[in-house]
Amino acid sequence: MRLLRPSWAGLLRGWHHQHQRHHRRLLLTTSRGSNGEREEQQNSQWSSPGSRSEQLLYAAFWAGGLTLGYHWLTDKKNHVLLEGQKVASEEELEATARLWHVTNRKELPTYRADEVEQHNCAEKRIWVTYGLGVYDVTDFAENHPGGDKILMAAGSAIDPFWAIYQQHNTLEVLELLEGFRIGNLEGLVVTNVDDELGSPWSEEPQRHALLKPASKRPFNAEPPIGLLAEQFYTPNELFYVRNHLPVPVINPEDYELEIEGGAKDKTLTLEGIKALPKHSVTAAIMCGGNRRSEMTKVKAVKGLSWGAGAVGNAKWSGARLCDVLREQGVQPDETKHVIFEGADLDPTSHPYGASIPLAKALDPRGDVILAYEMNDEPLSRDHGFPIRVIVPGTVGARNVKWLTRIVVADKESDSHWQQNDYKGFSPSTDWDTVDFSKSDAIQAMPVTSAICTPQAGARVKVDDDEGHITVRGYAWSGGGRKIVRVDLTNDEGASWHVAELEQEEMPDGRHYGWSLWTARLPVSEAQRKAGDVEIWAKAVDSAYNVQPEKFEHIWNLRGVLANAYHKVKVKII
Amino acid sequence: MRLLRPSWAGLLRGWHHQHQRHHRRLLLTTSRGSNGEREEQQNSQWSSPGSRSEQLLYAAFWAGGLTLGYHWLTDKKNHVLLEGQKVASEEELEATARLWHVTNRKELPTYRADEVEQHNCAEKRIWVTYGLGVYDVTDFAENHPGGDKILMAAGSAIDPFWAIYQQHNTLEVLELLEGFRIGNLEGLVVTNVDDELGSPWSEEPQRHALLKPASKRPFNAEPPIGLLAEQFYTPNELFYVRNHLPVPVINPEDYELEIEGGAKDKTLTLEGIKALPKHSVTAAIMCGGNRRSEMTKVKAVKGLSWGAGAVGNAKWSGARLCDVLREQGVQPDETKHVIFEGADLDPTSHPYGASIPLAKALDPRGDVILAYEMNDEPLSRDHGFPIRVIVPGTVGARNVKWLTRIVVADKESDSHWQQNDYKGFSPSTDWDTVDFSKSDAIQAMPVTSAICTPQAGARVKVDDDEGHITVRGYAWSGGGRKIVRVDLTNDEGASWHVAELEQEEMPDGRHYGWSLWTARLPVSEAQRKAGDVEIWAKAVDSAYNVQPEKFEHIWNLRGVLANAYHKVKVKII
Repeated sequence: MRLLRPSWAGLLRGWHHQHQRHHRRLLLTTSRGSNGEREEQQNSQWSSPGSRSEQLLYAAFWAGGLTLGYHWLTDKKNHVLLEGQKVASEEELEATARLWHVTNRKELPTYRADEVEQHNCAEKRIWVTYGLGVYDVTDFAENHPGGDKILMAAGSAIDPFWAIYQQHNTLEVLELLEGFRIGNLEGLVVTNVDDELGSPWSEEPQRHALLKPASKRPFNAEPPIGLLAEQFYTPNELFYVRNHLPVPVINPEDYELEIEGGAKDKTLTLEGIKALPKHSVTAAIMCGGNRRSEMTKVKAVKGLSWGAGAVGNAKWSGARLCDVLREQGVQPDETKHVIFEGADLDPTSHPYGASIPLAKALDPRGDVILAYEMNDEPLSRDHGFPIRVIVPGTVGARNVKWLTRIVVADKESDSHWQQNDYKGFSPSTDWDTVDFSKSDAIQAMPVTSAICTPQAGARVKVDDDEGHITVRGYAWSGGGRKIVRVDLTNDEGASWHVAELEQEEMPDGRHYGWSLWTARLPVSEAQRKAGDVEIWAKAVDSAYNVQPEKFEHIWNLRGVLANAYHKVKVKII
Repeated sequence: MRLLRPSWAGLLRGWHHQHQRHHRRLLLTTSRGSNGEREEQQNSQWSSPGSRSEQLLYAAFWAGGLTLGYHWLTDKKNHVLLEGQKVASEEELEATARLWHVTNRKELPTYRADEVEQHNCAEKRIWVTYGLGVYDVTDFAENHPGGDKILMAAGSAIDPFWAIYQQHNTLEVLELLEGFRIGNLEGLVVTNVDDELGSPWSEEPQRHALLKPASKRPFNAEPPIGLLAEQFYTPNELFYVRNHLPVPVINPEDYELEIEGGAKDKTLTLEGIKALPKHSVTAAIMCGGNRRSEMTKVKAVKGLSWGAGAVGNAKWSGARLCDVLREQGVQPDETKHVIFEGADLDPTSHPYGASIPLAKALDPRGDVILAYEMNDEPLSRDHGFPIRVIVPGTVGARNVKWLTRIVVADKESDSHWQQNDYKGFSPSTDWDTVDFSKSDAIQAMPVTSAICTPQAGARVKVDDDEGHITVRGYAWSGGGRKIVRVDLTNDEGASWHVAELEQEEMPDGRHYGWSLWTARLPVSEAQRKAGDVEIWAKAVDSAYNVQPEKFEHIWNLRGVLANAYHKVKVKII
C-alpha cells in the first residue's frame, strides 16, 4: 500500500477546475464562447492543446459521467483535501488507491506520450497509461481476463476502455495495475479546442477519446475496431465522425430549413420539423472511404486513411422527407434529384452539398428522414445538430449534416463532393487520365464486412476442447439489401464457415441496418504449431452480391468502395 | 460447274412435304395434333427423330421463312422437275448452284453427324455441313470475311447462320463452298417432336436450330454465345429457353388467369388482360444457373450445364401487375408474397410455381407485368404463351410462364423451385449438410458479365496498326441496377481497359435491360509472340458491386449465381 504524494492536491484542483469548464462548454455548444472563457483557459494549467494521450486522459473524466476518477473525486475531495494526511480505514484505503493513477510518482521517470506509443506490442513491451501513470503490462497481457482487448490500448491510454468496462472499477484491479507502474506521463491536456480567436476551428465540439482521428481539421475519426461489433447500436459518442469542414455553430432557435421545389418554396423551423409525424429507421452509415487503409497498401490512394471503423449503426428519428416533399406538392419524376446543403462552409463560403435521386427521396420504403435524434438522443454537433438528412443504404457523403437547404432539381448537386469526389474508377485510371464527369456518383454502397475481433496481430486463445477460435464482426450492404450470409475461412478458402447473424427483422430492400456476426473457426493441429493464421471474411447480400477477393482489381485512385475480403493475421496461442 | 444428281428430285419432294407439315403445325400449336398427323409423320422419310445436325438442317428451312434453299425450291421446282435436264441460262446456273448442298454426291463418302462433330478445330480440320453437304473449310477459315464466326459452326451446320447472314446468299459463295465439299451427310430429320402418342413431350414446339440444348426433355437451350451480343434485343427465336417441365398446350380462347387475394378473387381472360393499359419494359431475363459450366470446373455441381448464353434481353409488353392487384384491392404489406403458378405440370400434377415479395409486385417502379408480347410479337409457346409474368431484375425462375394463378399470400410459394432450389450456399455446404430452409430464395441477381466475341479458343487477328483486338459482350445486374462500367484486361489485371457501353437510358433502380459493351485491348509484342492471351471481363453495377475474381470462393452445390470474372483464352494471329 502506497501513500499519496503531495502533488495530488494540485492535480485535483486542476481536474475540478477543468470539469467545471467542461460543463460550461456543454451549455455553450450552440453559441460562441466568450473571450473571457478563452483567456481563462489560456491561463490555466490545462491550456496547452493536446497530444492524443492527453486528450484520452481528459476524456476518461468526461465521457458519459461514468469516469472512474471523477465520481470519486467529486464525492471525496473535500474530505481528502481537508484532512491532507494518511488514511487507514478500508474506505479510505480504496479512496487512496483511486488516486494513484492521477499521482506523479517522483521516484519514477517521466515519459512523453510519443515515447509510450512506441511500446505497443510484446516485442517492444506493452506500455499503457492510466491517468498520469505509465505501466508496463507485458507480462500481464496474456492473463488479462478480457483477452486481447488490452492490446487495443497498447502504447496509449486505458482510461476510455475502463470507462466502458466497469469491471475494472475495483481495488484489486487498481492494486494490480499500480504494481506495473514504471513512470509518469508528461503533461496533460483536456481539450482539443483551438485557442486562436476567430479560427474556423475554434468551436469544434469535444469528442470521445476513443475516436482515432484520421485527421483533426476537419475532424475525422473512427472508434477502435475492436469495440465496433460489441453493440448492435453504435454508441453515439463512438460513432465515426466524418467532417469535410469545420463544425458549424447553430442555435436551434434560429435554425431554418429552406425547401425549394414543388408548389412553392417553404421554410421549416426545428419545431416545425419536430411537429411532423416522427419516423424511426435503423440505418448503418458508412463512409465511402471506409477501409481505405487496406486499399492503399496495393498502391497509394488519395484520402483519409480510414480503417474498418468508418461505419456505425444507429436508430435515427425524424420527419420523413417523402412526407415533407409530398406536402409541398413535389411530383414523382425519375429524372430529378434532391439536393441537400449543410451549414458547414468552405473557405469560399460554399456549403457542403450532395444529392440523391428524387425517386429515393419520395419512396416511403426509401426511409429518407430529416433526423433530429440518434439512438433516441438529440443529434450531437458532430453528427449534424440540429437536423441531418439520413439516406439509408446510401454512402455517408449524401447524408448531409447541419441541413439548411433542400432543392428539388433537374440535375445532381454541382458540389465538389457530388461531382469530383465519391466516385469509382477503373484500377488503371490515374490522376492524369481521370475524368470525373464520366463516372457515376456513389449512391448505394456495395456489400462489405469486417472482422472486429480478433484484431490484426492479436494473440488468440483456442477457446475450447474442440479447438475453435471465435471471430466477430459486422457486415452491411447498401440499397436496403439484407446480409444473407457471412463466410469465414482460416485456411485461405479451403473451408468456409458460416457465421451466426444478429440483425434487425426488416423486409429486404429496406434492410438498412448492419448485421453483426459471430463465427467459430476450428484450428487445426498444424495451425496451432505454425502459430500464424490468417482469417478472411466475406459477406453475401440479398442480391447474392459478394465481396471481391482482393483490392488489386478494385483499386481506384480515391480509395473508395474498398470492400474486398477483410483479412486479419493473428497468432494462435 | 456440276450437274444435278438424280437423287435431288426425291429430296425436293421431301422438303416440300415437310414444309407443308410445318405450316400445319404452326397453326396447331395451341391444340393437340391429330393422330392422323402423327401417322403421316411416321410414314414419311423424315420420321426418325433427329440428331442435332439433322435438326439444324431442317431449321434452315424453317426459321423465319428466310432460308436459302427453300425459297428457290418453291419458285423453281415445277420448272426443274418438269424439264429434268441440264440447265444453261445464267438464272438456271444459279438455280442449279442453289441445289448443290441438298444434293447427294455419290462419288463422295457419306459421314454421320457425330463424325462431322469431331472436326471442330483447325488441328482436327474444320468441317461444316450445309444441307446434305459436308465441307472441309480449314484452309478458308482464316480468310473468312466474317472472321471467327465461322468457327461457331465448326463440326456442325452452317445453315442457321446463313439464314441470318444473308450475305452468303450469292452464287460466288455457293461456288466457293462447293469447292470444299468432301462428302455427304447421312440422314436428315426435320423435327424434334416426340413420336410416342400420349407422351407429355409430344407437343413440344419447334425450336431454332441454333439453340444448343442443355437438356432436351425438358427442353433447355441457349444460343451460341458468339451471336448473343450482336443485337440489343435478343431475337425471340434465339432467346434461351428454360423449361422445367413439358410445354403445356393452351388454347388462348380457353385461357384463364385466377387471382386470389385482395377484396375478392377474380379471373382474367386473355382478352381481359389485353384490355388493361399496356406497359412495356426492357428486361434481361437470366437463368440462375447461367455460366454454371464454368463453376462446375472447380468442383462438380448439380444442374444443367449452361454456358454464358442462358440470358437474353427483350422488350416485354403486357398489363402491369401493380394495376391488377390494386384494382383488386390488395394493400401494401411488406411481409407478404405473390405466388405464381404455371400451366406446366409435374408428373404428380403439381404446377411449376414461384413467388416474389408483394412489395416488388406493387411497386410501379418494379415494372412487373403480365406479358403477352416479347419484342412486339406474341409470346411463343416456349416463352410462356399466352401469358408470362415478367419480374424485371429477378432471377428467371420467378418469371413464371404459362401463368394460370396468382395468389397474394403470407408465405413464399411452397414449390420445389422456391424452397429447395435456386438458393445460394457457402462453398463448404455439400449435399450431406445442406439445409435449404436456412437459405434465402434468389430474387434479384448479382452483377455479371460475359465476353461473347472472341470465343474461347478463337484465333484473333490484331485489327489495326496500333495492335488492338476488339472484344464484345454483355453485362447485367439484378434489382434494376444499371451497369456503370465494364473493365477488361488481357494481362491478368496489370492493366484494365474500360469498355464502351450500349444501354437503354433508364433511371437507376429501374434499369432492367442488359448492357452490351465493346472494348479494344492493346496486344503487346510479347503477347503476339507468345500467341496465347487470356481476356478477363468484370462489370460494376450502380451500387458499385463488382464480380468476384474466381469461382472457388463462390462455388455452391447447385451451381447457381456463377458470376465470377469471365475469362476467355484466345490465340493471337
